[in-house]
Order: sequence, then C-alpha cells, then structure tokens
Amino acid sequence: MKSIKVFAPATVANVVCGYDVLGFAVNAPGDEVTMNLVDKPGVRISKITGDDGRLPLDASRNTVSASVQHYLDHVKRNDVGVEIELHKKMPIGSGLGSSSASTVAGLFAINTLLDDLLTVKELVPFAMKGEELACGYGHADNVAPALLGGFVLIRSYNPLDIIKLPHPDNLHAAIVFPEVDVPTRDARQMIRSKVFLKDAVTQWGNIAGLVSGLFMKDYDLIGRSMTDVLVEPTRSILIPDFYKLKEIALAEGALSFGISGSGPSVFAFTKEEETAAKIVAKLQQHLNKLNIGSQTYVSAVNNQGPKVIG
Amino acid sequence: MKSIKVFAPATVANVVCGYDVLGFAVNAPGDEVTMNLVDKPGVRISKITGDDGRLPLDASRNTVSASVQHYLDHVKRNDVGVEIELHKKMPIGSGLGSSSASTVAGLFAINTLLDDLLTVKELVPFAMKGEELACGYGHADNVAPALLGGFVLIRSYNPLDIIKLPHPDNLHAAIVFPEVDVPTRDARQMIRSKVFLKDAVTQWGNIAGLVSGLFMKDYDLIGRSMTDVLVEPTRSILIPDFYKLKEIALAEGALSFGISGSGPSVFAFTKEEETAAKIVAKLQQHLNKLNIGSQTYVSAVNNQGPKVIG
Repeated sequence: MKSIKVFAPATVANVVCGYDVLGFAVNAPGDEVTMNLVDKPGVRISKITGDDGRLPLDASRNTVSASVQHYLDHVKRNDVGVEIELHKKMPIGSGLGSSSASTVAGLFAINTLLDDLLTVKELVPFAMKGEELACGYGHADNVAPALLGGFVLIRSYNPLDIIKLPHPDNLHAAIVFPEVDVPTRDARQMIRSKVFLKDAVTQWGNIAGLVSGLFMKDYDLIGRSMTDVLVEPTRSILIPDFYKLKEIALAEGALSFGISGSGPSVFAFTKEEETAAKIVAKLQQHLNKLNIGSQTYVSAVNNQGPKVIG
Repeated sequence: MKSIKVFAPATVANVVCGYDVLGFAVNAPGDEVTMNLVDKPGVRISKITGDDGRLPLDASRNTVSASVQHYLDHVKRNDVGVEIELHKKMPIGSGLGSSSASTVAGLFAINTLLDDLLTVKELVPFAMKGEELACGYGHADNVAPALLGGFVLIRSYNPLDIIKLPHPDNLHAAIVFPEVDVPTRDARQMIRSKVFLKDAVTQWGNIAGLVSGLFMKDYDLIGRSMTDVLVEPTRSILIPDFYKLKEIALAEGALSFGISGSGPSVFAFTKEEETAAKIVAKLQQHLNKLNIGSQTYVSAVNNQGPKVIG
C-alpha cells in the first residue's frame, strides 16, 4: 500500500490593494492530509480531525475528495482507489484559506503518489474546483499561492494567467484570527458592484507600487503601497475594532496592516520576526479586553508551497 | 552670456491598463529649448518655431516660461534673467506629451544653467505646474517620464510618489499620430466617473501583470497584460478606425496596441525596431485610405530623459 502525508500552507488573499488578484503563503498554520492508495477504486474520506465535525465525510461534498476525484477524471485514472485522512490544523472560516490548504494538500498528495502526472502549476484549476464547492466561487488567490508558495498574482481568470512574484527574504507576516464568524459569501455581498474611477486609479497605482516593491525588495515601498480605499472600508465593519487594531500594529512598527481574505483574520507585514511577534501579542491583548478569543501566527512568507512530511 | 540648448522627449501616458499612473519616454519626437541667461531679470519667450502660431509668447501664459518662473521663485533666484527660444519639433494636441516635452526642456535647461540646484526628480512638481496651465490638470504621467526617462509609475499624487521601472532593452514603440483634433479636456470628460468593480479588478490584475513583465523583461507578459477594459472603449470613439488600426498592428506582430495619452495618437509595442517600422507604415497606409494625414515615429524606450544638445 502506497501512502503519503502532505502539509499545505495557509494563505492570505486579497492582499490589501490586491483584491481578487494577489495572495501569499505562510509557513504556519496549514493543513495535513494522509493519503493511502487502496485496491478498491474510488475516492473516500476515512477520517477528519480538528474540524469539530463541521466538514462533510461525504466524498462528493468534501472539497479535498471532490478535487482529487476531478483530478483522477482528468488524468483518466479512475482505476485508482484513494483513502484520505484530513487533519485540520488551522481554523475554518478564518479568512486564511482553510479550504484551500486542505484541497491543495490532497491534490499535491495524489499527484505525488501518481509520480507527478501534472506540474504543480497545472494543479491550480483542480484546486479552484474545490474552492467553488467550498465558497460558491472558484477563485485562485488562495489555492495558487498555497500550491506555488510565495506571492502569486492572478493576472487573469480567462484565460487563467498566474505569475509568481519575488519578495524580500525577511518579510514576515503577523496574523491574528479573532474568533468571530464572517462567512465568505456574506463578506463578498457587502462589496459595492460600482466604484469611483478615481478610487480605482488610486488602487491600481498602489498595486503597481506593491508589485514594484516586491521586485525591488523595497520594504518601505511595499508598506506605503498597501492601502485599500475600496474594499477595506466596507469589510472592516465585520471585524471587531479593526481600525484600533491597525493603529496598534502600525505603532509597533508594522509596514502595513489589512484584512486577510474576507476576514475576520487580519495581518501585518514586518521587516523582522521579532516585530511580528510583538504585534500579535499586542493585538491579542487588545482583543482579550473586548472578550474576543484569538489565535495568532508569526511566519516568514512561505516560498515552497506544499511539502511531503511523511 | 551663458547659453544652453536642451532636447526633451515625447512621452506616452495612460499606458493602456495604466490609466493616470504609468508613462514612458521615447527618443523621438521631442522638443528643443534654447535658453540664454541675460542681465535683465525676468523670464521672457523670445521666439517660438514650429507651432504655427498656436502657442502664447506671453511669458505668464506659456507653460515653459511659467514653470521656469515657478522654479526661480522656489530657488529664490528672481535676480536671474532668462530668454527662451522654444522649437516645437513635435505636433501639438497629439497625445504625445507635447506641452510636457517643452516644459521639461525648459526646466532642465534652467536647472543646468544654475548648476543643478535641484535633482531631476525634484523638478517634477514644477513641470506639473506647467501641465496645469496647459491642460487644466497638473498630472505627472507625461512630465515624470520626460524628466526621468524610461517607464515611470506615479503611485500616488498625495504625497507625490514616483517610481522608475526597468524595461527590456529591445522594447520599441511604433507611434502614429492621425491628424485629427482631440482636445485633452474633452477626452477626459468622456470617461465615466463610476465603473464596475469587476472591471477595475481586471484592470489592476493587468497593471500588476504589466509591471511584473517590465521587471521580468518578459515581452509576452507585457503584451498580454496590456488590455484596457475601462477607458479605451470610450476614448477609442474619438480615433478614426481605432479597432481596425489595432487589428492591423497585432497582425503585423505588435505585442500590444493602445491610445497614447488621451489620443489621437496610438502606439504599439514590439520586440524589434523592424517590426515597429513595418507597423507604422501599414497604419499610415490605412489612414491614407481614409484621407487622414498622419505622422509616424519608431523609437526604443528612451532611458535618459532630457539632454543637452548645444
């Protein structure tokens, strides 16, 4: 029996001025999938841990098994039997690409077990199918960085055009997940469908600045480009004391501060790990005062994507 | 008597998906300013050639003299006497940064004569004053590339944040100015003040792709990112047979095709000079059939900005 254990990373999408087009991966948290090839054809979920019973064991409804099935259909290997254990090691509904981490771990596992029938980049559309099942919209800004590592630009969906961007080595993310509920579907519906052109111009000046800063490894340019005049003003309403949290992070030396995905997680960029550690401690302290529990993570930008851990 | 002659380049602003934030300079065409320091304080225009009498000799109304005066006020050198000859070597109202080339030549001349009291980057705000006089709006996306050379991103106006971007060495521009009249003010008013967020997302995915392509020296990425879903559909109405011209350019091997500034000039990017030469010939041929005269230019991207030529 062939068996493998894979870790795939959490991701921050909608990176401030990069709404819907930019995401990056972190080293922690992330999800783990153990996959066994078995004789009986078909894809089954044998076990899920760490989800408090929230995720479906039904293989057609679970994003991991559904995307693995989709992959097997594509590579014409429906003779293969797969048993999946999913170990959730990160919070669900946190805005950190939870479903994406699981799906990517599963796809990376089956592709590795089948001797890399596809390249990692070719796995993106299958992972997007999983996202469609999980949140009603097949976006790529979590799954692409989870698969490729680093910063990833989704230039276009039609045709799909994914570009991996460089980043400065010491760029760290300070991430805080306040334990309040913000369903992705609701967060998406809050956003206005029309915006002022002048605000859009501000936004694309900023994403051009952010991309330039990543290539130039210019921390200051990265920081001052990370302003969102379009989405943050609305979405921040769903996050407890968002602007106070931002003020605290910037006062502690953050380069930037924003919402991760559709929230409620927030993240700051820093030049050093220590600054990130200080920031998450201060933010958690403030949320404690509001009687809101939180989980915190400090991580460099993950440059590798998924990895085999057993 | 100290005297100097300066050339400053034409520029392409609103670079397709980079509306209001991105511009680049070319080697030709451009304008020339001859400047003499004289005993009698004050700034005077002594001569203008090549403008068919369209530009004001009144020093307070001419963008060159007005921005030079603004510069002298700032550096507290109102003791200086300046006589300016402006030689227009490029068409006015062409969408190629005509006023900007003149203004930049004048500012570079006075700054050189006064032993570089300011850096070239510090001249940008003075040139923007000239633009305000010329077209009612103090934009920087022509003057900044005319001063700095190459591709320039205007990330933000408030505060002014200007970033020079790299580009591949062989990137050439094929430029055609169809001799029809499109005043900048009218072209600006045609644009809708509100846009769909989904279109804005497409646009900022593309500008992020274009900036990445410039850094990566990836001609193909540059080309496929240069799509404008917001401004071109409206502004192209003012340009004779725009979509046919686009079709011709792309068929001849252009990487991209778009409007320069607010038109009526159009430009294509190519990988080689010969392709650019072929494209301008074909486009001129098509405009001839429509009984529209045109002027054509083929140039590499200018990396230097203004230069002393005498």
